[in-house]
Amino acid sequence: MSGTFVIAQGGGPTAVINQTLAGALTAIRGRHPGIRILGSRHGVRGLRDGDLVDLADLSESDLARLARTPGAALGSTRDKPDARYCELVLKGLRAAGADAFIYIGGNDTAETQRIISEACGGAVACVHAPKTIDNDLVENDHTPGFITAAEFVAGAFAGADLDFRSLPGVYVGIVMGRHAGFLTAASAAWRMDLEGAPHLVYVPERAFDRKRFVESVRAVLSRRKRCIVAMSEGVSDKEGRSLVEGLVAPELLERDPHGNVRLSGTDLGQAVERILAEDLPNVRARVDTFGYLPRCHAGICNETDRSEAFDAGAFAVQAAEEGSFSVALQYDGKVTRPVAVSLSAVAGKTRHMPEDFLLPDEDQISEACAAYLSRLLPGKPAFLPPFA
Amino acid sequence: MSGTFVIAQGGGPTAVINQTLAGALTAIRGRHPGIRILGSRHGVRGLRDGDLVDLADLSESDLARLARTPGAALGSTRDKPDARYCELVLKGLRAAGADAFIYIGGNDTAETQRIISEACGGAVACVHAPKTIDNDLVENDHTPGFITAAEFVAGAFAGADLDFRSLPGVYVGIVMGRHAGFLTAASAAWRMDLEGAPHLVYVPERAFDRKRFVESVRAVLSRRKRCIVAMSEGVSDKEGRSLVEGLVAPELLERDPHGNVRLSGTDLGQAVERILAEDLPNVRARVDTFGYLPRCHAGICNETDRSEAFDAGAFAVQAAEEGSFSVALQYDGKVTRPVAVSLSAVAGKTRHMPEDFLLPDEDQISEACAAYLSRLLPGKPAFLPPFA
Repeated sequence: MSGTFVIAQGGGPTAVINQTLAGALTAIRGRHPGIRILGSRHGVRGLRDGDLVDLADLSESDLARLARTPGAALGSTRDKPDARYCELVLKGLRAAGADAFIYIGGNDTAETQRIISEACGGAVACVHAPKTIDNDLVENDHTPGFITAAEFVAGAFAGADLDFRSLPGVYVGIVMGRHAGFLTAASAAWRMDLEGAPHLVYVPERAFDRKRFVESVRAVLSRRKRCIVAMSEGVSDKEGRSLVEGLVAPELLERDPHGNVRLSGTDLGQAVERILAEDLPNVRARVDTFGYLPRCHAGICNETDRSEAFDAGAFAVQAAEEGSFSVALQYDGKVTRPVAVSLSAVAGKTRHMPEDFLLPDEDQISEACAAYLSRLLPGKPAFLPPFA
Repeated sequence: MSGTFVIAQGGGPTAVINQTLAGALTAIRGRHPGIRILGSRHGVRGLRDGDLVDLADLSESDLARLARTPGAALGSTRDKPDARYCELVLKGLRAAGADAFIYIGGNDTAETQRIISEACGGAVACVHAPKTIDNDLVENDHTPGFITAAEFVAGAFAGADLDFRSLPGVYVGIVMGRHAGFLTAASAAWRMDLEGAPHLVYVPERAFDRKRFVESVRAVLSRRKRCIVAMSEGVSDKEGRSLVEGLVAPELLERDPHGNVRLSGTDLGQAVERILAEDLPNVRARVDTFGYLPRCHAGICNETDRSEAFDAGAFAVQAAEEGSFSVALQYDGKVTRPVAVSLSAVAGKTRHMPEDFLLPDEDQISEACAAYLSRLLPGKPAFLPPFA
């Protein structure tokens, strides 16, 4: 390669997306000394609009600081380019003299790479490097960004459990996850003991039923005097309607200019609070919306996540020397390592939680799920249970 | 002293309320070897109901684990005993042969100690040991539990700032604080640079105005393309009405059986989302409710807070040898140390943020506030700003 590497970051940022950028930069400098390295700002927008930054002069110490900084150093985008947009991106790649384009992001980002790689017929090596807190990329055992977000959620529920053993009541933590429940399931990763939180887990993969929810909360309350619930933002009823649509009178729903119901954590939180207030009156209840905190909190970062994210970026450079690929983190029973898979295997596809990650008759995670979480998050704090 | 020490924890738990318990236990064992030590479960309820645990046999390793466990190991209570209830508590203290009663909690807990100490005429040394994430105890430079909660909030906003530099929009973080804005102001403790978050800070000490809020957000957005807002749960308008009362049609307000409007973070979050959707349509906006996370998240604990909380508990034992007091953390310009003050100086009183902690014409913290926060939270992460 003699031309230029271009790197960009797309989709929701994570705590370690800059580790992947740093890994790629480090590998490029090591394997292609002196080659030009450009960053495209705000994902492929930068290539489309000519908004590029020269990354070659980044000092070692700045690179180390960048690697440990949450959020996307190159900015990000939610744009999902169609063929026309991709043509403009390709134009930008050609104008930059790009040999290779590394795009760090989720399944939409992989799809963008797939379109561009087909459009340019191999002239540019288009590599997708994985990233998402939702853990919903196929071909991956887990994805960069997930473990740190999961550690945040695990710590939040371990703490909430103790808080509600102190002052009993109902607590609902609303966790991001439109399609996949992995991050919500992570609430159980650091469960203290058999009666620990979360007592109930609601994920997008299973239809939500209001009556069953209330009965379950009531049952847990009578047994344990408290009830801690983990709930995904993406839960919906058996008709596929989001919870808020099922619960709020139509004229009160927030709608965007197209008439689509606006979904957000706060809407769901409100809906859940109303259910509890109506069906379990006089029970102390609190609903918190974690929102973006698991993906950006400056105080939480998992070292395994950091190094895997870095390695994924470094591997993306090696992959780019061979052609267009998606980098996937795969686990062989002993170690996790990045491998190259085809873009079409990953592009636009969503991984859901395996069915056996939930118990069949309870809204609770299974042993299989607990084992998976324990492998990724072994650092459970050694707390002392309160005095009985 | 030859009888018994009784210890209890009251009010909302924190990350370090068990450090205070551990400090007290350690000091009692050291200064009064062999004396009986009883824990009253769920605050003074345990004394009222005869629900006491023997703390003498707690091993050193369990004590160390307990100290680092969030939440209240003895359970807690929100009971605010009147004179009658206090009589029953006093009866319990006598039945236990108590020489001294150490009650760890906030200003309501101090008030309970004040009532009991007066009722028993000095027969029992009633000591209040400080605790609150709200930092609203008078006589205290800052309170055990505050620094850890503030570190959580600081890390959340430092991260959100970077997240929203990646994908611009409006972000509102709702922080607990019914009466005092210290915890909300802590959102600025780790501000990255002059254009860092939070851009707007709304606290209970200043009347909230919807129009001014929207204009401020609009101004920040046009200047910075993003706007990060920190808002206390306790903000109210100039009539003293909570935000949600001013914004939501009366028939839609959640009410308790007494007809009181139920206030919660989610209600406020919803109200703020509605304001933004109505007055700034088509602007990407996200509202998260931190709720209890700052006080219990298992992954965040500040070492200064830990040791100060421990020392406050140890000092409470010394104070109890002299009589009935409130322990306060005071700063002499160089170091923070616990001192004994009168119970009536602290009982039932709420400290508000000093007026000079907010800029007069902006909804933003002042240099004085920034200096205070910097003294308590010096560990600002060394992040690299995104590429411009």
